[in-house]
Amino acid sequence: MGSLQELIKEQGELVRKLKSAKADPAQIQEEVSKLLELKAQLGEENVGSQKLFLKTPKGTRDYNPEQMALRLSVMEKITSIFKKHGAETIDTPIFELKEVLTGKYGEDSKLIYDLKDQGGEILALRYDLTVPFARYLAMNKITNIKRYHIAKVYRRDNPAMTKGRYREFYQCDFDIAGQYDPMLPDSECLRIIYEALKSLELGPFTIKVNHRCLLDGIFAACGVPAEKFRTICSAVDKLDKSPWEEVRKEMVEEKGLDGAIADKIGSYVSRSGKRDLVDELRKDTELMKQPAAVQSVDLMELLLKYCEIFKIIDNLVFDLSLARGLDYYTGVIFEAILIGDNIGVGSVAGGGRYDNLVGMFDPKNKTVPCVGMSLGIERIFSVLETSIANKGMKTRTTEVQVFVAAAQKNLHEERMRIIAELWENDIKAEQSYKKSPKLLAQLQHCEEYGIPIAIIIGEGEIKKGEVTLRVVKTREEAKVARGNLIEELKKKLEIIGESKQH
Amino acid sequence: MGSLQELIKEQGELVRKLKSAKADPAQIQEEVSKLLELKAQLGEENVGSQKLFLKTPKGTRDYNPEQMALRLSVMEKITSIFKKHGAETIDTPIFELKEVLTGKYGEDSKLIYDLKDQGGEILALRYDLTVPFARYLAMNKITNIKRYHIAKVYRRDNPAMTKGRYREFYQCDFDIAGQYDPMLPDSECLRIIYEALKSLELGPFTIKVNHRCLLDGIFAACGVPAEKFRTICSAVDKLDKSPWEEVRKEMVEEKGLDGAIADKIGSYVSRSGKRDLVDELRKDTELMKQPAAVQSVDLMELLLKYCEIFKIIDNLVFDLSLARGLDYYTGVIFEAILIGDNIGVGSVAGGGRYDNLVGMFDPKNKTVPCVGMSLGIERIFSVLETSIANKGMKTRTTEVQVFVAAAQKNLHEERMRIIAELWENDIKAEQSYKKSPKLLAQLQHCEEYGIPIAIIIGEGEIKKGEVTLRVVKTREEAKVARGNLIEELKKKLEIIGESKQH
Repeated sequence: MGSLQELIKEQGELVRKLKSAKADPAQIQEEVSKLLELKAQLGEENVGSQKLFLKTPKGTRDYNPEQMALRLSVMEKITSIFKKHGAETIDTPIFELKEVLTGKYGEDSKLIYDLKDQGGEILALRYDLTVPFARYLAMNKITNIKRYHIAKVYRRDNPAMTKGRYREFYQCDFDIAGQYDPMLPDSECLRIIYEALKSLELGPFTIKVNHRCLLDGIFAACGVPAEKFRTICSAVDKLDKSPWEEVRKEMVEEKGLDGAIADKIGSYVSRSGKRDLVDELRKDTELMKQPAAVQSVDLMELLLKYCEIFKIIDNLVFDLSLARGLDYYTGVIFEAILIGDNIGVGSVAGGGRYDNLVGMFDPKNKTVPCVGMSLGIERIFSVLETSIANKGMKTRTTEVQVFVAAAQKNLHEERMRIIAELWENDIKAEQSYKKSPKLLAQLQHCEEYGIPIAIIIGEGEIKKGEVTLRVVKTREEAKVARGNLIEELKKKLEIIGESKQH
Repeated sequence: MGSLQELIKEQGELVRKLKSAKADPAQIQEEVSKLLELKAQLGEENVGSQKLFLKTPKGTRDYNPEQMALRLSVMEKITSIFKKHGAETIDTPIFELKEVLTGKYGEDSKLIYDLKDQGGEILALRYDLTVPFARYLAMNKITNIKRYHIAKVYRRDNPAMTKGRYREFYQCDFDIAGQYDPMLPDSECLRIIYEALKSLELGPFTIKVNHRCLLDGIFAACGVPAEKFRTICSAVDKLDKSPWEEVRKEMVEEKGLDGAIADKIGSYVSRSGKRDLVDELRKDTELMKQPAAVQSVDLMELLLKYCEIFKIIDNLVFDLSLARGLDYYTGVIFEAILIGDNIGVGSVAGGGRYDNLVGMFDPKNKTVPCVGMSLGIERIFSVLETSIANKGMKTRTTEVQVFVAAAQKNLHEERMRIIAELWENDIKAEQSYKKSPKLLAQLQHCEEYGIPIAIIIGEGEIKKGEVTLRVVKTREEAKVARGNLIEELKKKLEIIGESKQH
């Protein structure tokens, strides 16, 4: 027991150090979790059974008003781009029948959160928004729709919260379902990624594109047995995080692939380009024996052409190492990464075509071709939060335009009369909930929350039938007749550029 | 087995009948659920093991684009009122450590959804937004905040989906935390309920108010033993759904209360009024022996006075039968119901003061007084959906301003050039994803989705360097030079009142 207590002591000191150093809150929470787990091991109920409550579940967090203000403004920007492209929105339950999720995520299925069997159906939390979308289409026999969906999903992953990876996180999806002509919806998805990343001012970025059938063609040309296509694809997917040597090892040692075949794969997946890569692949006679490869090279050429028309070709790269982890992709796949200062953040958008997923839910296997994209909104938040912190900026968390203050005691009823009039006139206003707040405290509140105007009343003002109108920033004050208050206030808000936003 | 098969047949016919009669989708889903359960009982895997996937979990539903458009517009209205009162917003995880929820909901705790123990912490889905809010305050040592939170909560209740009661539903909360003067924050909560219900145009409504300490005082005066206060309170809470005779039966037969005591309670809880009830209670010498009653009658008088200043007194009633189910209330409680045409919908808002909840999470029991309200947004949606359906109105589900159409085959590349230019200029635009869509189909799409303007190109137009600009509603057409397209389009959108909303 001695050593466990020592561990707790050490861990406790670490937490205190991080707190006093104002370290990243996610990191602090991670260390607090460890501390609490150690304490729980010790079984010391008296140490703090109540304190044990005081955390969010592992891998999750609360969002405070500042974080929410940023998140909502980012989501609004993204939503406005989805709407610019004519998308509708839908919502689905946070959990699904377990069977809906089964067999859709390959090796990642172990990360699904199950609900306890409390009698009734067997349920699980949604792992992404794509599978529920496919279930929705099949269930409602919808054959075409363009929809966005911004909502939380759940993965029992090992959280790396300092890197912005959580067990509960938002996904931000846009998908086009319907039987259309090749690459027309696909290229629009890429254009939307481009517009979103531009509008969020995240700095330079690259969108990698590839085609699942081309990968399959390459695997076939290299001599990979068909039943190993998916597992080898999932190994290639790790190339963005691991060097080729490690991926090769996984292929050969874990997945039983012939070393020479792995080497051939290696010679393909190191290549990238644009039109030049299309031409190069067309000259590869071995590869061109694979019908899947011929067809998908043609499709990639078409995609690149459309991306030229959409003026996004400069941000695109045709990259044979791009594989994407999920099983359900059947065509074009893509992934956007930040370059420049934010290199290393990882993928900030991704997606692809999945033509067979809806059919998995249809009793007659009738399918609806789909292509879609997901913005890595949590990573985007992380990048923006860091950038705001670096610039020392302060985010306003309310939209209050006017604070109703009193200079003397017990004027709360008069304050209430005034504020009711402001609300009646759609002016965003607040006041202290104390009967006799100090004037200084009231004005400090205005400064802290960035409230532009204060109305100040005192007994003198009440007698004369007027109020003082104070511009918080400049401290400029003016007397206004009580009867003209709303009119004067609206004028003032107009002048200082704080009139109603709605 | 014969009779089970008959049941399935009958149930199947019922479903078909409802579907062909275009009955309420929620009702259809409820009956489909029953059908699937019957089929599952039969164990006929061949009947449709795949079809079994095609439902949402019991008590939940998807929201289609029309439902979402309405929901988002309602949420935006409510949010704008919360913001008018200076609220910030926060978010918490959808699940909490189970211990956080334990002991907060009294008899309703059995309705909590637990997550499966997959190793690690024991978790449960949140049951409301109030307990997570209290946990957030205690964990972050926040002593005052005014926040709103609109998010989903989960209750394993018996769903009555036709009445708009689901197992997954939105709550829409506004709370004021902090040590303030009596009834100042409380009366603002009532004012917000008033503003929200007004702004949603739900028709006439009444807000009932009462005080938990007054109820306790009444119970004491009637001779209820202190340990039975909460359980008797929970019986009184049923008075909005059940007649007094049933509630009395519960008190006497289930909860072992003396019949004479129950009758005394009955004589109180049938009373309601405004200032007159305050005066009446003050004259009740038996009741005035209870210090809790004296104090809470004073407080109710103060609340009524503030509500007069806030100009909401006409919609208020001081109602001694109002009890509220939850254990954590400690002061004022309130509930709004629709009257007039929408009587019977039930409560559309509710809340109260809960001064001890935060303290339950603090290791030193340090508490933060709170008062808050929750809008019954699901019921509000139901009322509005019915009213929209009755009026035969159609909700627009996208904000598309311009559709780019082609009058001949294979003009998709030119369409793409034009639409990219529109997007570049922040015009909301869409087009067909087919290379050669029929003109009629394109124009029909515009009418179906309420898109105001179509740009039409043909080979003739391309040669002459112009496009046709068509106002969908009036079918009025005009030729515009390709180079002036954006300018002319913006003018036209301005004229027909469809210029950019953001």
